Amino acid sequence: MAALTNVTRNAAVLIKVIGKHRSFSCSTVHHGSGKRVGFIGLGNMGGPMALNLLNKGNSVTVFDVYPEAMSKLQDAGASVGHNPAEVAEKSDTIITMLPNSGHVQEAYAGENGVFQTAKPGSLLIDSSTIDPSVSKEMAALAEKKGMIFIDAPVSGGVMAAKAGTLTFMVGGPEEQFPNARAILEHVGKNIVYCGPVGSGQAAKICNNMLLAINMVGTAEAMNLGVRLGLDPKLLSSIINTSSGRSWSSEIYNPVPGVLPNVPASNNYEGGFGTALMTKDLGLAQNSATRSNSAIPLGSLAHQLYRLMTVRGYAKKDFSSVYQFLQKSENSN
Amino acid sequence: MAALTNVTRNAAVLIKVIGKHRSFSCSTVHHGSGKRVGFIGLGNMGGPMALNLLNKGNSVTVFDVYPEAMSKLQDAGASVGHNPAEVAEKSDTIITMLPNSGHVQEAYAGENGVFQTAKPGSLLIDSSTIDPSVSKEMAALAEKKGMIFIDAPVSGGVMAAKAGTLTFMVGGPEEQFPNARAILEHVGKNIVYCGPVGSGQAAKICNNMLLAINMVGTAEAMNLGVRLGLDPKLLSSIINTSSGRSWSSEIYNPVPGVLPNVPASNNYEGGFGTALMTKDLGLAQNSATRSNSAIPLGSLAHQLYRLMTVRGYAKKDFSSVYQFLQKSENSN
Amino acid sequence: MAALTNVTRNAAVLIKVIGKHRSFSCSTVHHGSGKRVGFIGLGNMGGPMALNLLNKGNSVTVFDVYPEAMSKLQDAGASVGHNPAEVAEKSDTIITMLPNSGHVQEAYAGENGVFQTAKPGSLLIDSSTIDPSVSKEMAALAEKKGMIFIDAPVSGGVMAAKAGTLTFMVGGPEEQFPNARAILEHVGKNIVYCGPVGSGQAAKICNNMLLAINMVGTAEAMNLGVRLGLDPKLLSSIINTSSGRSWSSEIYNPVPGVLPNVPASNNYEGGFGTALMTKDLGLAQNSATRSNSAIPLGSLAHQLYRLMTVRGYAKKDFSSVYQFLQKSENSN
Amino acid sequence: MAALTNVTRNAAVLIKVIGKHRSFSCSTVHHGSGKRVGFIGLGNMGGPMALNLLNKGNSVTVFDVYPEAMSKLQDAGASVGHNPAEVAEKSDTIITMLPNSGHVQEAYAGENGVFQTAKPGSLLIDSSTIDPSVSKEMAALAEKKGMIFIDAPVSGGVMAAKAGTLTFMVGGPEEQFPNARAILEHVGKNIVYCGPVGSGQAAKICNNMLLAINMVGTAEAMNLGVRLGLDPKLLSSIINTSSGRSWSSEIYNPVPGVLPNVPASNNYEGGFGTALMTKDLGLAQNSATRSNSAIPLGSLAHQLYRLMTVRGYAKKDFSSVYQFLQKSENSN
Repeated sequence: MAALTNVTRNAAVLIKVIGKHRSFSCSTVHHGSGKRVGFIGLGNMGGPMALNLLNKGNSVTVFDVYPEAMSKLQDAGASVGHNPAEVAEKSDTIITMLPNSGHVQEAYAGENGVFQTAKPGSLLIDSSTIDPSVSKEMAALAEKKGMIFIDAPVSGGVMAAKAGTLTFMVGGPEEQFPNARAILEHVGKNIVYCGPVGSGQAAKICNNMLLAINMVGTAEAMNLGVRLGLDPKLLSSIINTSSGRSWSSEIYNPVPGVLPNVPASNNYEGGFGTALMTKDLGLAQNSATRSNSAIPLGSLAHQLYRLMTVRGYAKKDFSSVYQFLQKSENSN
Repeated sequence: MAALTNVTRNAAVLIKVIGKHRSFSCSTVHHGSGKRVGFIGLGNMGGPMALNLLNKGNSVTVFDVYPEAMSKLQDAGASVGHNPAEVAEKSDTIITMLPNSGHVQEAYAGENGVFQTAKPGSLLIDSSTIDPSVSKEMAALAEKKGMIFIDAPVSGGVMAAKAGTLTFMVGGPEEQFPNARAILEHVGKNIVYCGPVGSGQAAKICNNMLLAINMVGTAEAMNLGVRLGLDPKLLSSIINTSSGRSWSSEIYNPVPGVLPNVPASNNYEGGFGTALMTKDLGLAQNSATRSNSAIPLGSLAHQLYRLMTVRGYAKKDFSSVYQFLQKSENSN
Repeated sequence: MAALTNVTRNAAVLIKVIGKHRSFSCSTVHHGSGKRVGFIGLGNMGGPMALNLLNKGNSVTVFDVYPEAMSKLQDAGASVGHNPAEVAEKSDTIITMLPNSGHVQEAYAGENGVFQTAKPGSLLIDSSTIDPSVSKEMAALAEKKGMIFIDAPVSGGVMAAKAGTLTFMVGGPEEQFPNARAILEHVGKNIVYCGPVGSGQAAKICNNMLLAINMVGTAEAMNLGVRLGLDPKLLSSIINTSSGRSWSSEIYNPVPGVLPNVPASNNYEGGFGTALMTKDLGLAQNSATRSNSAIPLGSLAHQLYRLMTVRGYAKKDFSSVYQFLQKSENSN
Repeated sequence: MAALTNVTRNAAVLIKVIGKHRSFSCSTVHHGSGKRVGFIGLGNMGGPMALNLLNKGNSVTVFDVYPEAMSKLQDAGASVGHNPAEVAEKSDTIITMLPNSGHVQEAYAGENGVFQTAKPGSLLIDSSTIDPSVSKEMAALAEKKGMIFIDAPVSGGVMAAKAGTLTFMVGGPEEQFPNARAILEHVGKNIVYCGPVGSGQAAKICNNMLLAINMVGTAEAMNLGVRLGLDPKLLSSIINTSSGRSWSSEIYNPVPGVLPNVPASNNYEGGFGTALMTKDLGLAQNSATRSNSAIPLGSLAHQLYRLMTVRGYAKKDFSSVYQFLQKSENSN
């Protein structure tokens, strides 16, 4: 889901998950689980998450391929491992936050991976957004070694990672959910149980594919209306009080000037990049192909975002699809 | 917008238009405008509207190609004309509610059309959903005869037509808006001024195109999630508290059983038919082509609904796209 | 069809129409029809066509909104009219070659249009590429005045217009076909009878929509293959000897360097412009919507070409979609 | 490429590959390679291929999960293995012809797979159509054991398999190509070298994606033309002599009655099934996503074929997309 770096006030809307479906809202300060937590992957999301774990009193061992990412955590009190295996050796619970399926396979099943040294009974929580089939593959390997692998991708973006208000969509054995929640509530606000391993990924992928479709649709409708002579704020207010409304039109409108404090009003800087959305749409496409599911609009949104990445929009917020549809300066 | 025949409780959500942008909420009983109102087109929408005009104390003359549609109104106190020209002869203000552009052209500019007999200064309000370019064409012809033509398509469906709570999106000369509103508030709750003639059509077309996109997208995401093993109610609740939410997922969910009282939970009966949505998407496509606007997802939604109309879904509610995507009984 | 200005050798492939289906190949020199021919619209296509009519010994009266276009023909021996009506006054047969539907409506049914002065029995041949419904509209108006209106759009481009080797796709009353052919064989090589009025436009629109689809498809397949490591010439030869082959892959390959003498090997200069293809796809879309025909790939090709026109490709040959799909310099 | 079971006369067109690009045409009778050949996967394609190897005098050991498939070959003189490992034990060269990537992984790298027992130096030729990334994965595993893995998917269908006239698109180390060719010319007519391992799959995937696009496009254009009133044979002849022509329109026209001896004229029986085309489009989609290639029409064709598989067309020839677009009996 959208990494709303500069849209703080909207974050609540993005991530509020009603407290049914076994979710859990944590509002009090936590004082350490007593457990030793390993954290692998200290990027924009993982770094703040590991810091929150430390700040909540946990004993944390970290690893990242970039040494500078580790030294920051070290300064804050974390121990350091030289590879995933070393982290696993010193931990009971391990959280991974990595860019893609390949990194996750390497971190767990690679030569110096977690599976080499983690103790039977270890809880392995992968918060990366990856292919659900890789989550299942890792879970099967973990099970052979008596470990528990859980997928728990997040929603809420960098701001929520820093604030410790992430939403986690959790897939794994239901009896392990309380243990996972006990740790994840140190870094998140809403922990939702989604079903067997891979279900967390599935839920995230479905939501983000729909987000992309709604956003492209909103951009098309707003662009069409403006070209037909409508004032964008007026059209936006009509849509938002009618059946065309969505999160994309109400909270994250792609037309510059319609809403303050959204990427569209800031030259599409910040927010959730087109390249990242393209990656998530690729995962949705893979899952749809594998499960024989027809996703005509999802596929086309995927292709449009892919075109945008090769036309200069890779690092712009994904709402820049509005700009992509418009007449450009160099057109004839 | 969706004709929510059996979704009464949701109608308010569909049609509430915040009272800025020169809209007007009528909450008190009205007692006749003193003006003579003509009403042409007494179908599922036009019939109840004409009845409301009568009940509010107006003098109403009606016409429809089906005599039985007229006799119902006659019993309720309406006068009858034998063609649009006869209606126009006896009226100061004329409202039309017709199926498509061709009917509107015929009713106004045809052999026995309104333009033949209407007095200079007459206010002609077309509430049909048609091509904005036809609205402009009619307005130009009206202007030559000293009449005022206004487009005012509606949102809210049959229930709102009966309840007199329709939303009108009005396009025409701004100085004529108060006059149009004075009549339309007898049949509607929210009257929104959108700009010059054709703007009402433009606003409606943009909203409905977006509605179609969001609905197909919701159907795809829900279908994908279910095939990946997620419970549809759980997935729906995750989407509705996250960035994928829209009117289509929250108020009109296309998956049977997720919401009560929606067409999806009633075998896709009632609601807003696939054939009508296809017609609106055709209007959006025409407007987009004429204005050189790219609408990739809108075009694809158009084509998918068109495919549905030839595969047996023409009369089903447009949320039946969920069923269209699923494995059917006769598939291999 | 493609205006292959610099692909002379391929022109034959593009326009050869086997001599059945009532087509007619003219190979001998013609010496005037004795009829007075009017020609309206002297652009890139119309200019050379009018010149050929003159050179074949006809008495020709011309009109164009640009005086300089007329003086060129005047120098070659043509008479000049100040508007379509003046041309019609002096002619028995009139040929129009105009940019779009609106121009055609104006030239025939406008204030100083052909219908004002043409004699009953006049043969009106429109070679513009326009909406078949406008052809039918003009034919109906002509019929009321006892004139015969025929649609006869062309294939072959500027080179064929100059060489007098155009293909004409003719729609109109079958008994009038010999008369139309007698004139058109002065400017074309293959004259194909397609059916009632509008059929010529229908045939052209269907072919060009398919051309666009095949071209975008070829560009996608070639681009995918190259990114997967295949040599483009090798892939091209495999496709061209297999089931993926088409005119677009064999004769007009969109990958620079695969074929000599095609726009792709000349920086996509010349050829058939993206803006013109977009116009034809708009006509196909209109006809499909009006006839309730599903054209999912045609619609998407339309939208992609529309996107290209706003991203700087309007004047490039339509095979530049290959470049549009590729990684651009300013992408990340 | 299309499995043209009942389209014998067209097979030549489908598979002729000009003899450059290191391809090789075998026209003389071959008398055994002296090598021991293993063959795994004896389905509609593999069965006849194995039989041809036997008939050309090779010593052949076979395996299939269905015993009856093996007994047929046993009767013809083949030895039998109880699993891939047993086949590999008795062979110098092994050919596999399996339904999908998973089967290939199992046959080579599974518990009783080829890699368990094949001798260093063995030539492993996989003729299945699978994901090129799996071909590369298998090649890497083979290399570790000193074996050579080559991908060589086929074109031409069941008829060509029986006739020994298949086309092979070969990917692997160039120096191994002569060895592969020496065996493959016993079962095929054209052996094309495409590049490093995976290149054969890439070429096949690109061609088949383009075939699907051209076919859907042809169906759309023909359907549109017919609905606009054109005779399908006439439209077909215009397209086939113009720029819209392709293998799909000329050799395999999807409209019933336009061509004899194609599936369209035989109730879409035989030919290349929609489910198989959907599988190949899924492979194209996976390769495109992995290589960041935009394939908008390819993706949409994929989704349309996927929709067809759930609407009753799974076993019909892929040209039945024409019927899918048309008005059906139960539509309103």
